[in-house]
Formats: sequence, structure tokens, C-alpha cells
Amino acid sequence: VTKTITLLTDYGLDDDFVGVCHAVIAGIAPDARVIDLTHGIRRHDIREGALSLRRALPYAPAGIHVAVVDPDVGAERRAIALRVADEQRILVGPDNGVLWLAAQRFGGAVEVVDIGRSPHRLRDAAATFHGRDLFCPVAAQLACGTPLGEVGEPLEPDEIEPLHMPLDVEHAELSATGLLLGHPLTINGRDALYATTFADVNPGDLILYEDAYQTAAIAVNRGSALEQLGLDRDSEVRISPG
Amino acid sequence: VTKTITLLTDYGLDDDFVGVCHAVIAGIAPDARVIDLTHGIRRHDIREGALSLRRALPYAPAGIHVAVVDPDVGAERRAIALRVADEQRILVGPDNGVLWLAAQRFGGAVEVVDIGRSPHRLRDAAATFHGRDLFCPVAAQLACGTPLGEVGEPLEPDEIEPLHMPLDVEHAELSATGLLLGHPLTINGRDALYATTFADVNPGDLILYEDAYQTAAIAVNRGSALEQLGLDRDSEVRISPG
Amino acid sequence: VTKTITLLTDYGLDDDFVGVCHAVIAGIAPDARVIDLTHGIRRHDIREGALSLRRALPYAPAGIHVAVVDPDVGAERRAIALRVADEQRILVGPDNGVLWLAAQRFGGAVEVVDIGRSPHRLRDAAATFHGRDLFCPVAAQLACGTPLGEVGEPLEPDEIEPLHMPLDVEHAELSATGLLLGHPLTINGRDALYATTFADVNPGDLILYEDAYQTAAIAVNRGSALEQLGLDRDSEVRISPG
Repeated sequence: VTKTITLLTDYGLDDDFVGVCHAVIAGIAPDARVIDLTHGIRRHDIREGALSLRRALPYAPAGIHVAVVDPDVGAERRAIALRVADEQRILVGPDNGVLWLAAQRFGGAVEVVDIGRSPHRLRDAAATFHGRDLFCPVAAQLACGTPLGEVGEPLEPDEIEPLHMPLDVEHAELSATGLLLGHPLTINGRDALYATTFADVNPGDLILYEDAYQTAAIAVNRGSALEQLGLDRDSEVRISPG
Repeated sequence: VTKTITLLTDYGLDDDFVGVCHAVIAGIAPDARVIDLTHGIRRHDIREGALSLRRALPYAPAGIHVAVVDPDVGAERRAIALRVADEQRILVGPDNGVLWLAAQRFGGAVEVVDIGRSPHRLRDAAATFHGRDLFCPVAAQLACGTPLGEVGEPLEPDEIEPLHMPLDVEHAELSATGLLLGHPLTINGRDALYATTFADVNPGDLILYEDAYQTAAIAVNRGSALEQLGLDRDSEVRISPG
Repeated sequence: VTKTITLLTDYGLDDDFVGVCHAVIAGIAPDARVIDLTHGIRRHDIREGALSLRRALPYAPAGIHVAVVDPDVGAERRAIALRVADEQRILVGPDNGVLWLAAQRFGGAVEVVDIGRSPHRLRDAAATFHGRDLFCPVAAQLACGTPLGEVGEPLEPDEIEPLHMPLDVEHAELSATGLLLGHPLTINGRDALYATTFADVNPGDLILYEDAYQTAAIAVNRGSALEQLGLDRDSEVRISPG
């Protein structure tokens, strides 16, 4: 049976890039179900793509999972397809870290191939549109049941590029911090509340909560925690019982 | 046979919310056809969602129809699924009025269940993402043929929340107003024309017309009737033969 | 077997227009695969729609191809469906040039029908929403196998509206210009480079390259060639060896 293909890119929906990727897949794997996880990743933001893929994938049926956030398309970066330890999921994309967090989430890569010269890429593959010419045709082929070993040249799992994060807070256990739901705390010195949802607090209140993806999150009800706390990406945040 | 599922939300397409909803449905109902009616409803605008659902639904095959515009997610509002009198359509969403107009359009609710504690919701349902954790899993289950009575606790049809509108003008019959196509009229004292399409008038002209959904509409060709007439939502508009 | 339907419009994704088109198709051709090529064409920009359709279509499986960019909907323009010489592809849309370039790309129209009064249009077809009421229902019928001759009144292929372009540069062969990859050149008197990808040049550099659709293109790495060269649509561009 044909497998499900998921797509995640930074292409946006203003032009025909995403549509042409769907068209290419439909030509090769007419029975594949294709799910657009999102095409709204910030252009060239590999980390945002990697985080979004990791949190979305557990909700998708196991299949072929394409992620294209690719600032160095046309340059030296490798293109890969890999099988993870869990659920036989196959991930396809540039070897720049965008697949890394999702691969780790499913037990890490156990089989990897370099698809840069795959026999299944489109003839005359363009230097600049690998979603259409390389990643989607290879993914469609894999969805039809072609073995991973036949779509590229073998690599060792430890040859692929990791994603470097300042600190992985995903698995920080809120229960271990001594915070109690509904109790006051401070975030970078400001008064806040450990709440379940926005519905529990007043507009303007700063809250710590577990977001919809079980990640610790900070927010201001109907406002911006980023602005109120003067934070940037990778800023340090200190949370203490109030 | 698996039924069609339609989705209408205020999630937008910038992040992975809609994609994850599709992923969840694909896991439960792999053969369901899923149609995105729109995800562009203004955030938290229940009335806009209700109007859009009412006018779009008659064009969709009868099936399971999910609408999520949900400012009070995580608070006390109920989550419901209901069957309407006509065509066995089933509507799924928060009980805040967003389903109301569409339900009325198809003869009103004849069977209603509270799905807040449905056995088919995802484990660890998040407080804040009921589209993924509650509405879509329940809709997918219903699309597979699970009876409505098995996805939640029964409610009386008259227990659900109506949508309060200042005045329902949908069924105002233009023919009854004494206006004749092509004849002049006034709208709040300004000269206008009762026209069939923009092609009939000059740029800047104010027209009354029957829009693509058979609703009486006011517009300025290549301009804004809202601005030209100084109107707001719920403003009164007086139309008289000119 | 049911054929694939592709959609290309200027409707955008902010409201329910595209969703309702999908709904109408699902009702008539429940097994058709529908591919959104794009709905991001600039509003009423027939030429952009025609160019996008021409470059996207070769990547799509042969089927029914709808394009709706339709500034004169409701006025006198014809609505047509046509079969091209190659691959039995059928194109459906307004007869205003939007289908022209794609038809030429596939050998030109060999059979054309006027679908303005098609028996397959929706009852009460609105004057202003022909995507829903005319083009998509007719396309869905064609996808189910209804012969072209039964969805409208025959026209001669030479009766359809061509698209007038200032100059068709698509097939300009770069190899014929005496330019060599990596060599300097000038564009409207400014220093530039004939490069393969952005990865080959520095930020701010002006390049000539073959884009992902094999079209000669001019760009500034991380900048705007339009602004840097002061160009408008249809501006003349002179390229010379440097």
C-alpha cells in the first residue's frame, strides 16, 4: 500500500512552489495521501523547521516525511533520506539539521542515504528548486515502496549534521521545579502565575503554562511576553517560586 | 463508506495547527476526504465563522463538518457534536454559536451530544488545542461510521447556545422592496444603483446587489462601501427607491 | 478512472472561495484528486496567471486544469473548455488569455467549447462566482469522463483570445548569447555575473541565471533587482558580455 507523505517547508503559499511539489508527487504516487504540515516556516529558519517537524510528527501516521528549509540549496550541503528506529518512519530533506530533532524523537537514524544523485530525481534537476526536483520525487518513490537503499548512496548514521540548540528545554519537567498550579512565581523578576490556560488569568497577566505540545511556555494574555520581558531568541529566562 | 470531513477554523495557515489536524484525521480515518472550507476566519470571530459555515455548507457533500472558532477554549464552554434534520449532516465544534446558523439552515439540531469527555479524544488532551485533541479525532471517528450517541453524552437540542445576531437579513427578499434592477435608489441618503455585477457600473459607484451567496450586499466598485458610508458592524442601513 | 483536477486562481486563501470550489468538486467527482497549483496569483493579473499555469502544468499529471483569473466576470467575456494537442489535457477557464500560454505549451487547442450556458453549471449560477458555479462543476464533470463536446457549444480553435505579451523571452537560449557561466557581463550597464545559483555570489551582487523553470532570470542576492535596476513590468533589459 502507498504510504502517507507529509510536507513541511518554508515556501509559503503565495506562489506555485507548493502546488508544483504536489503535482510532482501525484504523477509518481497517484494514490499517496499528502498532508501539508505547514509551509509557513520562516524563510531559511532551520531551527524553527526542525522544532515544528518534531512536534507535529507524532500526530501523523508513520510514512514519508519531507522537510525543506534549505538556505544552502545549490551549494555543498548534502541531501539525505533516513529511516529512524521507531515506526519505520522515513525522513527526507537537506542534511542541515532540519531533520535532526524529529529523527531523535523517533529513536535516531538507523539507515541513511545520500540522495543528491538519486536515480529518481527529475531530469535536469534545477540548482534552486530541490523540493520539486529531488525531495518530492524521491519521497513519492519511497511512498510507493521503493527500498531506501535504492534511492541513494549509503552513509553512516553518524555522518549526518546535528542541529545545535543552546539548550533543549523540551523535557524540562515542570513538576520538578517546585511550582504549583495556580501559585505565584516570578519570571526574570516579574510577577507571574503558573496557569493551565489563558482563561485562568486577566488580560496583561504574565503566565507560565504547558503549551499544546507539552512544552513549557511563557505568555502574556492578549499581549506579548517577548516584548514585556524584552526577550530575544536564546535569551536566558529565570523562573522562581514567587 | 467513510464520509467527507470539512474543516473551518480561525487557525490561519502560518503555523502547523491546520496540518496537525489533518495528520490526526489521517491516522484515524485514512480514507476520509478532508476539505478545508477556510482557515481564514478572523481570530475569535464567532459570528464570521458561523456565517461562513452557513453559506459554504450547502455546496459541500453531506458529511462531518467541523468548525473551530473558540475564544473560550479551556474555560467552561461545552464541546458538542450534533445531527441536523436534513441530509444527516453532523456538525462538530464548541457550543458557542459557531454551529448555530448552519444547523438552522439544515432544519435545526435533532440529536446533540456533549463531547468534552469523549472516549475518542486524544489522551492527554491539551487545554488549549481542542481542534487537534478533541474536535478532529471525534470527527474522524464519526466519519468512519461511529454513531453519534457513542462519541459523547446526550444533551437536549434546546440546551445548545444560539448565536445572537442584531437582525437576520439573509432572507430579506429584494423583490419585495419595490426596487427594480438597473433603477436608481438611495442607501443612507446617497445615490446608488441596484445592479447585477460590478461590470454594470463605473468605478466609484455605489451599488446594491445580490452577492454570490444570494445575500443582499452593498459595495463600491473598486472602493469601499464601508468607508464611503461610514459604516461599522451592525450599523443600520436604509435603502429607498431613489 | 477519474482524472486529476488542478486549480489555479487569484482567490487567495483568506476566505471560503477556494474551499467552496473544492466542496463543489467533491460533490460531483468524489474520487477526483484535486491539486491546488496556487491561489496566490495577483488579483486580476491575467498574465501572471498564464505564466504560472504554463510553467506548472508540465509537472502535473495530464488531467483537467482549471485557471480562474477573471477581471471581467459578469461582463461579456466567454467561458471555455479546450483540449490541447498533447497528452489529452483539458483546460477550463475564462476566455481572456489566461489559458493561452499553457495551451500553446501543449501544442495548442484542437477542440474548444463555450461553456457559458453549460448544462452542468450550477442552477442559479451567480453573476460573480464562476469558479464555484461554472468552472469547477464543469471541470468535475469532465474529470468523471463526460466528453468535452457535451459540456458546451463548439467553437473554432482560432476564435479563442490569445494573450498578448510584449516579447516572449521564455525560449531565449542563453547558450546563444555568447555568455559563459561564471563570466562577467553587464545588465543595463551594470556589472553582473552569469551564475548558477545565489550560493555562487556575494550578497548584493547582480546575477543572470537560469531559474528553476528554465527561464532566464535577473536577481540580486538578498536584494531586489527590480529596485537596483529601476525596472518595471515590460521594461527593456540589455545584457552584454562585460
